[in-house]
Parts: sequence; structure tokens; C-alpha cells
Amino acid sequence: MRPADLTLAAAAAAVRNRELSPVELVDDVLTRIEEADARLGAYVAVTADRARHAAREAEREIAAGGMRGPLHGIPMGLKDLIDVAGLPTTASSRVRAGHRAGSDSAVAARLAGAGAILVGKTHTHEFAYGLITPQTVNARDGGRIAGGSSGGSAVAVAAGMATFSLGTDTGGSIRVPAALNGVVGLKPSYDLVPREGVVPLSWSLDHVGPITRTAEDAALVMGVLCGVSAVEPSGLRVGVPGNYYFDRVDPEVETAVRSAIRGLEALGARLVDVEIPMTRYVQGVQWGLMVPEASAYHEPTVQAVSELYAADVRVLLEAGRRMSAVDYLRAQRARTLMRREWSRLMETVDVIAAPAVPVTAVPVGQESVTWPDGTTESVADAYVRLSAPANITGLPSLTVPVGEDRAGLPIGMQLIGRAGGDGVVLGLARAFES
Amino acid sequence: MRPADLTLAAAAAAVRNRELSPVELVDDVLTRIEEADARLGAYVAVTADRARHAAREAEREIAAGGMRGPLHGIPMGLKDLIDVAGLPTTASSRVRAGHRAGSDSAVAARLAGAGAILVGKTHTHEFAYGLITPQTVNARDGGRIAGGSSGGSAVAVAAGMATFSLGTDTGGSIRVPAALNGVVGLKPSYDLVPREGVVPLSWSLDHVGPITRTAEDAALVMGVLCGVSAVEPSGLRVGVPGNYYFDRVDPEVETAVRSAIRGLEALGARLVDVEIPMTRYVQGVQWGLMVPEASAYHEPTVQAVSELYAADVRVLLEAGRRMSAVDYLRAQRARTLMRREWSRLMETVDVIAAPAVPVTAVPVGQESVTWPDGTTESVADAYVRLSAPANITGLPSLTVPVGEDRAGLPIGMQLIGRAGGDGVVLGLARAFES
Repeated sequence: MRPADLTLAAAAAAVRNRELSPVELVDDVLTRIEEADARLGAYVAVTADRARHAAREAEREIAAGGMRGPLHGIPMGLKDLIDVAGLPTTASSRVRAGHRAGSDSAVAARLAGAGAILVGKTHTHEFAYGLITPQTVNARDGGRIAGGSSGGSAVAVAAGMATFSLGTDTGGSIRVPAALNGVVGLKPSYDLVPREGVVPLSWSLDHVGPITRTAEDAALVMGVLCGVSAVEPSGLRVGVPGNYYFDRVDPEVETAVRSAIRGLEALGARLVDVEIPMTRYVQGVQWGLMVPEASAYHEPTVQAVSELYAADVRVLLEAGRRMSAVDYLRAQRARTLMRREWSRLMETVDVIAAPAVPVTAVPVGQESVTWPDGTTESVADAYVRLSAPANITGLPSLTVPVGEDRAGLPIGMQLIGRAGGDGVVLGLARAFES
Repeated sequence: MRPADLTLAAAAAAVRNRELSPVELVDDVLTRIEEADARLGAYVAVTADRARHAAREAEREIAAGGMRGPLHGIPMGLKDLIDVAGLPTTASSRVRAGHRAGSDSAVAARLAGAGAILVGKTHTHEFAYGLITPQTVNARDGGRIAGGSSGGSAVAVAAGMATFSLGTDTGGSIRVPAALNGVVGLKPSYDLVPREGVVPLSWSLDHVGPITRTAEDAALVMGVLCGVSAVEPSGLRVGVPGNYYFDRVDPEVETAVRSAIRGLEALGARLVDVEIPMTRYVQGVQWGLMVPEASAYHEPTVQAVSELYAADVRVLLEAGRRMSAVDYLRAQRARTLMRREWSRLMETVDVIAAPAVPVTAVPVGQESVTWPDGTTESVADAYVRLSAPANITGLPSLTVPVGEDRAGLPIGMQLIGRAGGDGVVLGLARAFES
């Protein structure tokens, strides 16, 4: 196996045992980027010189017995909403032309302190305001979408162009592309990972989190980001939703996820039927919070240079300016009630298991999904539908690969934990994958 | 001195020493209500039978050695936004016709548990949405306004129609009428006193707190409401604002407050010149938060029965429906910055001393105030101007009487404390008044 394809845990072990040098690892990842990124479009900018220089330094430090931890010398990609001192944070937008970050974001500083090596900034749907990431294509099939908005980060990890990456998730933007590209994505508990120095989409729904090849790798990154580690699962009650999460879901996705849930049972989990509360509010609350918060953040630039935004994003920003405060506050109050009901639900189980997305990666250009019951929804609505509850409630949620459909496209299972239960979710996913 | 005019502390001591029975005290207060309330208009409803019954029970309990504490057998008025089981909560509004509270608000339950006796529900500016309380007149001068929105609660205490009362304060609604009627009013730290069962005006700015004859009395009520007690002042740094709080203030008010501040210095406080941050945002943030939050709460009734609201309140509720979410969020973000700046300021002092209101009670019907610099502002804007910063920041703020103007109208000094520093503010005011 090429170094570029090792898991973070395997690469870190190899570096620790002097079987692999950070220089070889970074060089192989940069080579893979040269081979594949022209086709995949994961990166906005590749920081090859800077990465090679950092790799040589890491090699020296580690050779001198100074290995800082499992991320030392490991190549990473950061979604291009995340400030790294001296580099532009483009948000994949023309609006940010000429930008240069004055200092590291909190997460970039923690990762740099742990010795991780930036190989590049990854593409986002412009300002994270969409679930497609049009610049990027799916790692498995170039005719399929990457998903978004952290599409570049997911494709980079899936294709060996970074050992791990960070994304952001406001309505599924870590979990959707991770699921569609067959990797692990974790949206942590709200406010657990600091957002300072990360361009916001909707501050009350925004989360920063890792995209990795395994749940074990995600736990290593979370340890550096916020000190969380995986908890060995024992006697867990896993909730299986009787409503919502299996409604309007592709049969191949449902089969794969239900089979994975039986796998959790085989690991010792007790399955509990649960009913998801207040499901008819999900879409209204998600959009009712996100759209005006995004417009509030972008108001000065929309007034000054609205023509620089992509059409789909500009339309949403304009719509948000016309939303009333009373409607926004109605969404806020409904969210308060949803949080209360979910918190009651989570007293009865440790984790909820469900599909991450209702359908695998759709072909580039497909705009809607039609379900057997005759209903049609936009691709964005379909992908956000099963992700949004964890954004609204702030609960941790991880997607882990559980198979492929007949077209060879990855299927993800979502594990939603209690507030602050990130370690439990990571531990259960790690047990599942091993 | 008639029992009705005793301070809470003196009445409690007399009850404890068997020099005064709760029956005599309640009877005297009810007599005063009969004598004076037709003229003053402090009460929506007087609960005489219920109060006399409770007084006899308190008398028995205390005679049997079961005095619960300083509030046992003490007559109180509650602003008619505060639910008491079995009574209507009218909010002084036709919109609430036929209402009856199913259970006690959290504060009513705590006060009842401590043995306090409700003598009546006091008038508010309709739904607390104004600073006049038109049903009520000033306790000192029937041609002057009571102030509001807790006008009934302040006048009841000032005129011996309750030994203490509760009000609510969203932009000054405890402190303004307390100052205008020569009594003490405390707006506690945000969320310190529970708001469950109290009709909201603007939930992010709303506070419930005591109105009393002295700061010592306020500390006794706060002890029951939330366990806070007055802290003996020692070596306090008292900030004296160089800007904002003494701008556009009546000279008689300024003179009385500056003289009171010298009194604080004589008590051992060290005076420190301070500059108030972000003052040009106060009005925009206060109204930008309050107006849409109020409209969101009232939306169903405005849609159904808008004609039942008083004209001034209806106009504000309609205006709030037309505010955009982006403007509301702009106010929220400015508040976040204001809180940060104020919190830095409060690292340098323990308390800030300033006028409570820039002008004493204006004549009934007066709509605006003209200042020597030629500027004119509405009476409501003038009264809210010096109160609002403590609502926006959530800091505790108390008004204590510091004299009268030539017309014999009371002047109040405002003491603003650190977050959670309610006991310090109470202790300093108590030392000042003794």
C-alpha cells in the first residue's frame, strides 16, 4: 500500500517506528495530488513547498526523539473557510479575492502545534452555502457529485490526497460528502471544537470537525482539537427510529444501514425502538435559522458586490434579507422546543443509528430526487433532511461507511450521540469498523 | 407610624417580637388601599378576602412559634404579568379578558412558600410595553406620571399600599417607576430570578425583581427569590462615568446624584473615572431586540384581535412585524460586542454609580423632553436611555432615592454591578441609606 493510502493511525505508527518518514509520506500525498487532483478538483491551493519544508522539520524532530503525538508529520487538508496565517481563505468565492489571513484559526493553531502538516486548502461550496461543491467530483465516480459543502475535504481523504482533513457542517456539510465518498465524518457537539477564525455560514448551526478514513483516525484528530477520546462501548442502548430517518430512503441504503445496525447488536448493543420528535419542524427550523443568519453575515458584501457571488448563493442571500425577524424568532423558539424533546429522547438511549443520507451520490447536474410515494425533493433538501436534526439540536453525529450500492457508490450510517457524548459515538463506530 | 408605612425589615421585626400581628398589618394596608387607590390607580385587583384569610393563618402559625422568615405575614403586590394560581393575569390588557392562571409563577410560589401575603395585582403599562402606566399616577403628585411599566408596583410601595412588590424590567421598568416614586428598585442579574409564569415582553431583556422602601428590604426579598444576600461593602471601586450617564440630565438630578456619590466616597469607596463603551449603540440595540421579540410573542393575538390592544402598543407590535431578521441579528451581534466591552469595563470597578433617570416625573400628558443643547427626545426615550445598558448587558442595577428636586419629586441614583454582583450592589445601597 502506498503511504498516501494509509490510515492516520497506521501512518502515525509507521512514523513512530521509523518505518516511514514524514518526508516520504508528504511526498507521496503530493504526488497523488499531482496525479489525481486535476480530475477530482478537491484543492483550491496546494502548499507543496511549505509542506515539504515542514516535513523535513518533522523528520528531524522525530529523529531526535521529539515526536509530539500521532499527528506529527501527518499531511492534512483544511477546508478553505479555515484561516491559516499568511494564506488566503477564499471560501471558494470571488468575493474573497485578495484575502490573506493574519493569524491561524484556533483549530489550525492546535493542529500545527501537534505537528500536522498542511498540504492544501480544500474546496467548499461557495461560503459553505450548498451541498454540491461544484468544483469537485466524487472520488469513486467522476460523473457523480462530491457532495458538500466540505466536498474538497472529503474527496481529498477518500482519494489519498490527505491523510485527514477538516470540514465544517451547518446542515450536513461534513457528513454528506463523507458519506458520498466512503469516508468517516464527525460533526462534534456544538461549541466543542472552537470556531474562531473559521468563516461562518450560520453561527448557531455551524460546527468544525474531522474527515478521516476511519473512526479511530477521527478520535486521534478530536484528541488534538479538543481532548476528546473514544470511549470503549459497553452495554449501549442504540435507538432505531421508527419514523423519519427511514422514510423516503433508497432501498439499497436502507438495507445496508439495517444490516449495519444488526452488526451493532452483535457487538453487544441493545436495540431500542425510538420515535423522533417534532419532525415536521426540521426543515422550517433549519432554513429559518440558516438563511437569515447567513444574510446577516454577508449583508455588507451583498450590498457592495453581490454580482461576485455564484447565482445559487446570491439568490439565497437575497431571500434571507427579506425574511422577517418574527419568522426568525419563530424558528428559534421551535428549536428550543426541539432541543427539549430530543434531550428527553436521548435520556432513553445512548446513540441513535440511522442512514446518513437517503441516497448515494447523484449524477452531476441532477437537480431533484423522486421517491416511490410520488413526492419529489431537490437534491439539497434530500441530503440535508437526515443531517439537519443534529445541527439544530447540537448533538454529535458521525457517519461511517457501511457498504456500497450496486453502482459501487458508498453508503453511510449516521450515529447520533448525546450532547457531549462524542467519545461514545467515536468508540461505537471504531468497534463497528474493527 | 402606621403599620402600612413600616419598612419590610421593621415590620418583620415587629411581627417576630409579637408587637405586630400579620392581621393588623394586612388590615392597615387594605385600609390604605381603600383610602388611596381610587386616586392613585395602582391596583388592577385587590385580593382582600384572600389576604385577610392568609393573614389569620400566618398569625396562628407565628403564634405557634412557626415564623418562616422575614416575609412571613408581609403584604405584597405583584405586577399583573406574574401568574398566581386561580387569579387572572390581565397584563392590564383587554386581550387577556377571561384569563385565569392554572398555577403559580416560580416567583409567586417562592414568595408564598416564605409566607408573604398577596394583597393585589398591580397595574402595568399594557403588556409592559411602555414607560408610563397610564392607569396609575405618581405617589407624590397626582398630576405627574407614575412611570412604568411597573408603575402600579412602585406606587403601591411608595403609598403604603404594599410593604413590598415585584415588578419586571425590560428597559428600565422596575427602576424608572421606583426612581420616580422615591422607592428602591432592583433589576437583578439576567436569569438570576426565574421568569417562568411571567408574561414576557422581550425574553432576552426581561428581568423580574423587587420594589421596596429600602435596599435592606430588597435584600430580604432577594434572599427568598434566589438566595442572594447583601454583601458588606469594603474597599469598593465605584466607577463615575465621564460620558453618557451625565449627558442630557436635569441639573437638579445631576447635583443630587453627584452629592450621593461623594457620600459613597465618605463610606470608604474609591471613586474611579470610567468611560462607558459603545454608547451610540444603546438605543438601536435595545429597540432592535425588544420590538421584534415582542412582536414574535404577540403574533397570534395581533393577527386575531389587534383592535383590543391600546393604540400605542398596537403600533409598536405592528412595527415589529415589519422588522427584518437581518436587522434583528445586527442588534444581537452588536449586543455581543457591548457585553464584551462592558465586561472589560467591569474588571476595573465593582460598581458604577449614575443617575437612574435623567429627569424626575413629568406631568401627565407631557410627550417629550427638551434639553438645554436644543435636542428633544420622547419621554419614553429619556427614561429608557440610562436604564437600557443594564438590560442589554444583563448586569444587576438598583435605584436608590437620593433626594428631591424643588418640586418635591424624588431623584434616584443607579448602582450597576458586575454580573452576579447583586449582593454587592445591595450592600453598597444599604450602607448608603443607613
